[in-house]
Amino acid sequence: MNLSFEHVTLGQRVLFGTGAAAANLAAEVGRLGAQRVMVIAWDRETPVARTVAADIKVALWHHDVVMHVPIEVAEKARAAAAEAGIDLLVCVGGGSTTGLAKAIGMTSRLPIIAVPTTYAGSEATNVWGLTESSRKTTGVDDAVLPVTVIYDVALTLSLPVEMSVASGLNGMAHCIDSMWGPRVDPINAALGAEGIRALSRGLPLIAEDPSSTEGREQALYGAYLSAVAFASAGSGLHHKICHVLGGTYNLPHAQTHATVLPYVLAFNAPAAPDAAARIAAAFGTADALTGLQDLRKRIDAPKALADYGFTADGIAEAVAIILPAVPASNPRSVTVENLTRLLQTALTGEDARVLLDL
Amino acid sequence: MNLSFEHVTLGQRVLFGTGAAAANLAAEVGRLGAQRVMVIAWDRETPVARTVAADIKVALWHHDVVMHVPIEVAEKARAAAAEAGIDLLVCVGGGSTTGLAKAIGMTSRLPIIAVPTTYAGSEATNVWGLTESSRKTTGVDDAVLPVTVIYDVALTLSLPVEMSVASGLNGMAHCIDSMWGPRVDPINAALGAEGIRALSRGLPLIAEDPSSTEGREQALYGAYLSAVAFASAGSGLHHKICHVLGGTYNLPHAQTHATVLPYVLAFNAPAAPDAAARIAAAFGTADALTGLQDLRKRIDAPKALADYGFTADGIAEAVAIILPAVPASNPRSVTVENLTRLLQTALTGEDARVLLDL
Repeated sequence: MNLSFEHVTLGQRVLFGTGAAAANLAAEVGRLGAQRVMVIAWDRETPVARTVAADIKVALWHHDVVMHVPIEVAEKARAAAAEAGIDLLVCVGGGSTTGLAKAIGMTSRLPIIAVPTTYAGSEATNVWGLTESSRKTTGVDDAVLPVTVIYDVALTLSLPVEMSVASGLNGMAHCIDSMWGPRVDPINAALGAEGIRALSRGLPLIAEDPSSTEGREQALYGAYLSAVAFASAGSGLHHKICHVLGGTYNLPHAQTHATVLPYVLAFNAPAAPDAAARIAAAFGTADALTGLQDLRKRIDAPKALADYGFTADGIAEAVAIILPAVPASNPRSVTVENLTRLLQTALTGEDARVLLDL
Repeated sequence: MNLSFEHVTLGQRVLFGTGAAAANLAAEVGRLGAQRVMVIAWDRETPVARTVAADIKVALWHHDVVMHVPIEVAEKARAAAAEAGIDLLVCVGGGSTTGLAKAIGMTSRLPIIAVPTTYAGSEATNVWGLTESSRKTTGVDDAVLPVTVIYDVALTLSLPVEMSVASGLNGMAHCIDSMWGPRVDPINAALGAEGIRALSRGLPLIAEDPSSTEGREQALYGAYLSAVAFASAGSGLHHKICHVLGGTYNLPHAQTHATVLPYVLAFNAPAAPDAAARIAAAFGTADALTGLQDLRKRIDAPKALADYGFTADGIAEAVAIILPAVPASNPRSVTVENLTRLLQTALTGEDARVLLDL
């Protein structure tokens, strides 16, 4: 098969260092020559943000952060930044906090330094999201890509184990789904494989000991790569399925991803031998599904969609909604029959291996 | 060991497609909205460049390309670009041609589209080089990084096998040396490993059949990654050694790299188990050195520095010059004794395995 692809690498500086966030932020503010810094962090994370900003001069603190970035909240933050003559945005927090900084960046073109405290990954993408009248709009704009990301696992130690594992498996889903996303290319696949490698090392260490620095470092590093690979490759079959399950049946986000992933992997792997070999090599196992399932056992991952409120009644409708959204890039052709079988197995938590010979 | 690194990802668009250079170039010129395009290609490559530029309007052709970019040649090209009111530079050729485009870009800040015809890799870096009074100066400037690189192996089919293999092994040296370069980080290592994977697939196919599209595609893709990884990680032990051998003893560049590489790998691998495991996995072999040596056998790579004019008399002096340049990041501490042994084995082409137990 000929090698033919378009890959856009987003330019960004990543500073990764445990306990080094404050020093790294001060150095970056200096490097960028910023004079009027706005720090965004919601109330609960303000103490953490204050330690991160300990060595810089802050012109404006902004705490009005709301999930999914409602447009009114964005407008208020934009006005506050303009009024204060801000020349650099610093966001300390998870996806919603980074999202608010991006909302300011998209209209003001101000540079952003992101200091993530979760595995959300928004800091590594040029995607923004805004919610108006409870409808979420997303778009792509290079101006919202943070110029610098500062990772410090000391800021993630308070993330509960269960949420760390769920969020880490969400990252794992980004990595695996990027192997057959609509804009898949070998660079995405290589970065996704490195993400699998890091997450599969880190998550069991966190499950054993939530304060494991090595575990947290590998998980955070893996989550970053998962965002890079996924933003470039786009949503594959796994994300199309989970989007419908979450949106139409209101299933919990992270658990749905964690549960569905082995079924999508078993479904696609036989039709995508190169991707399967890459995934297996990244897990360090003989085959891809074994790698994922071994990891899921070690971290006690969610097992069946039935445990989260999904029922057999929903399958036919879910299949009808998912089917037209399946990307043409999917290695196995998806039909009503085989997609129904996939959802049936994920519903009951049956061994995903049954899909290998489908 | 804690994970601590700074990684700068350079933003760039890569369009990779066999036989698609002309169409991809026209699309990119359109996307960038350029009106006055200057195409740089030396005389010998003008026919190729004309086919690449077949679908765009060219305001100025420039053929005065000289190796190592003498400052007078750069000044003339800069003046020509300014006089013609150029708004986009397109370079079609190898390292010297890309280098001339960069020389214009560094003063004019004009965007560059690079269309490489060799495995030189300059198109993927923000490094420029100029020669004045036969002294080469290099520097780093993000303005010289091509905004877009267009790869088309149809343009590389005329590259002779011997040169393809040597140039490909030079890329392999970039990949392997980036595992312990002064700015090594896991992202460089992952990209370097993907480069090893691609080059080790492509080079034997080219050696068997120079017109192998798959071989050429894998080699070109691998050479690109090798440049990305190497530019980020910086020169490690291997490049420090080869720089001295080339500069002081005038040994041929590509052959020197190809010969020395297994000795540096054998020297460092036991002290760098993670890097060695990554390299081995990329080759798909049980250990790193076996992977490299198997490849070298298949492509009949150069074996001994003695074949290229180096003699035992030069070793002591070479060691004295190399030693102070060895990066602190090198996994094995380098001494007069073990570096002397390394050069002795490389001189005679002795089995590199002897260095494993040094």
